[in-house]
Amino acid sequence: MKYVTGLHCIKCGKEYEADPERYLCDDCEDGILDVDYDYQKIMAEWSKEDLKANPDQRIWRFEPLLPIKPETEKPKLAVGDTPVYNSPVLAEEFGIKKLIIKDDGLNPTASLKDRASAMAVVKAQEADAKTVACSSTGNAASSLAGNIASMGGRMNAVIFVPDRAPAGKLAQLLIYGADVVSVKGSYEEAFYLSAEAIKKWGWYNRNAAINPYLVEGKKTVSLELAEQLEWEMPDWLVFSVGDGCTIAGAYKGLYDLKQIGFIDRIPRLLGVQAEGCAPITEAFRTGEELEVTAENTIADSIAVGKPRNWLKAVRAIRDSAGEMINVSDDQILAMMRNLGKKTGIFGEPAGVAGMAGLKKAAAEGIIKRDQSAAVVITGNGLKDVKNARRAAGNPIEVEPDLEKLTAIFVEQGVT
Amino acid sequence: MKYVTGLHCIKCGKEYEADPERYLCDDCEDGILDVDYDYQKIMAEWSKEDLKANPDQRIWRFEPLLPIKPETEKPKLAVGDTPVYNSPVLAEEFGIKKLIIKDDGLNPTASLKDRASAMAVVKAQEADAKTVACSSTGNAASSLAGNIASMGGRMNAVIFVPDRAPAGKLAQLLIYGADVVSVKGSYEEAFYLSAEAIKKWGWYNRNAAINPYLVEGKKTVSLELAEQLEWEMPDWLVFSVGDGCTIAGAYKGLYDLKQIGFIDRIPRLLGVQAEGCAPITEAFRTGEELEVTAENTIADSIAVGKPRNWLKAVRAIRDSAGEMINVSDDQILAMMRNLGKKTGIFGEPAGVAGMAGLKKAAAEGIIKRDQSAAVVITGNGLKDVKNARRAAGNPIEVEPDLEKLTAIFVEQGVT
Ligand SMILES: [Zn+2]
Ligand SMILES: [Zn+2]
Repeated sequence: MKYVTGLHCIKCGKEYEADPERYLCDDCEDGILDVDYDYQKIMAEWSKEDLKANPDQRIWRFEPLLPIKPETEKPKLAVGDTPVYNSPVLAEEFGIKKLIIKDDGLNPTASLKDRASAMAVVKAQEADAKTVACSSTGNAASSLAGNIASMGGRMNAVIFVPDRAPAGKLAQLLIYGADVVSVKGSYEEAFYLSAEAIKKWGWYNRNAAINPYLVEGKKTVSLELAEQLEWEMPDWLVFSVGDGCTIAGAYKGLYDLKQIGFIDRIPRLLGVQAEGCAPITEAFRTGEELEVTAENTIADSIAVGKPRNWLKAVRAIRDSAGEMINVSDDQILAMMRNLGKKTGIFGEPAGVAGMAGLKKAAAEGIIKRDQSAAVVITGNGLKDVKNARRAAGNPIEVEPDLEKLTAIFVEQGVT
Repeated sequence: MKYVTGLHCIKCGKEYEADPERYLCDDCEDGILDVDYDYQKIMAEWSKEDLKANPDQRIWRFEPLLPIKPETEKPKLAVGDTPVYNSPVLAEEFGIKKLIIKDDGLNPTASLKDRASAMAVVKAQEADAKTVACSSTGNAASSLAGNIASMGGRMNAVIFVPDRAPAGKLAQLLIYGADVVSVKGSYEEAFYLSAEAIKKWGWYNRNAAINPYLVEGKKTVSLELAEQLEWEMPDWLVFSVGDGCTIAGAYKGLYDLKQIGFIDRIPRLLGVQAEGCAPITEAFRTGEELEVTAENTIADSIAVGKPRNWLKAVRAIRDSAGEMINVSDDQILAMMRNLGKKTGIFGEPAGVAGMAGLKKAAAEGIIKRDQSAAVVITGNGLKDVKNARRAAGNPIEVEPDLEKLTAIFVEQGVT
């Protein structure tokens, strides 16, 4: 870890050594840590040209900005290098100047969370751990299980999911061979049970909210986006927000890039929550401590009533001069259909919530007509087919008979 | 189409101009056409170094070997550039020297078929068509719908599916905004109804079995694999076989590369069918005309009782000194689990059928201990969660209580 100088508590500032098993501040409740780098040294030894010349297209190409030992074995899945699309059609529809979409649902296990889980597999090895555990509404879990499996049997994953996890995500976990514990309760209860079990059995902890290294994996989404946009950042960068880790990670990546001079400004962050579960938006607006809420939304990946990284998220959005906004489940479902039809991108509900929020923010004048935005689709719609069917409706059903088909087409105005 | 010299019938040899709407030979029943290139001219004007210098990572990087006009607009989805993994663990388990796995389920709509559908969108434009139609068990359809959607509303897709299409694939079609016709009948009946409708309404025809250009899209899987392996081909290349188009396309790509001197030998092709639907294996073994069979397998993408490209497939496998083998549904399900657990790759049943066949071929001595093989996973397991659950079993269900969890872990031998 050539450029890592240590960790510091985001509450009290206390500094710690960058031990792979150091999770939280000893002095503060919920004292989440952040990784520090020697930016001067990175600037002196690493350039955009060095990056361009690196043939590795995966997240490890950003090694100088990652808290890993170069020699640690990487999980084999090809995490990162997800495509970026320009959509003039949706930009016009929303009334903004330019719209960039990054489809992170094309990661190996079909979500952005692969970036954090790949990091967890590296850090677990550095801590000499063979078993990695996490609790998750689904994507963190499936990405951990997949990345662990790619090590070819040398490590194993124990996963705690709330029993409302969608079928697609559960299928992934089981296929990847993880020990899956389905907890009859909320995400919160699954989280506490996992914490107790991790303590009891000494497993490595892949809970993004408390493990400071995982945010460093997530930040690669910003590093990658910036490189793909040739370091020309849009005015706004949009994410859906659940636990707060992803948008906080995205901010960290942008902050790093600005510190080493790869970009000259940090875009404004727009954080989007679901109306039925928006505790971070509330804390952002009131400026007060977070109040736990219910978890009433179809967007399971961002249905987190007690988000642990809310403070990091709120600070990131404030520091970027950003905003937060909430969207309804109906707006999310409508956007799944609209995004699919206009771009060929199929996102899960939480994955397209950001896009729905962007549309609303443009309509409300938060994002102006002469401004550009980039939005990250955080997960693939195939993970949650039930809600996709709610969004998309039904096919035309017909006997194998041309006359019957013609009659239906005429009736429905097709052709 | 700088290097395309024309089309020829694979039955009688009759030559045709490369018109985008030329599908079949006028003189032969099922007279499927093949695209011809001026290989000498390609060799003189295009090198491996030119290819390496091309920054486009998508399938269009192979333009000199594709039947497209350079100026035709490409669909925006990032098709191709799927990852290649080396699995020493599975190579050892199967008893072969080396095993390469290419995960084509990481294409934008989650299957290899994106390669053909992207080509269809290009050829439809060259034929001045706004509507493209196809019949499909699912992946050809969802990939067409997605690639059409990525054109931003300027084109539309009409899709005919048999009513047994898995929920995940149907959800994709509807989200992508296609007109979806669910035909109460077999794949065969959906195919005939689509053919009648295409004739009646004059749509562009994306049925891979008869459209000679689509195979040219599919062949990019071989072009890409060869480049990723730095032109060192394995002894065997393994595909699951349904309609016959994919393995025929893969062969065409290898043939092209050999003709222009990029590779020095064509690997032996192993074609794998499901026991419950293996008409091509039967024709390959008997040397006689294909006999139509039932469609009794969970691997819906290769459940084709009357494959239209059987002759091209059989010839490709013969010309490569290859083999064919059948696997049971149980072997497919077991391999879904095994592949997921050892590599982190989650394939759909048809997607891993090739891997199951490879294991069987190694056990039977068809593939020797000192030989290497590459296998292409053709579709993502998230498309067919129902069968994934059949393959993978159930999670541990528990109340949020550490003592209860401990008791279950002790009982099941976890930790
Ligand atoms: Zn502290
Ligand atoms: Zn002919």
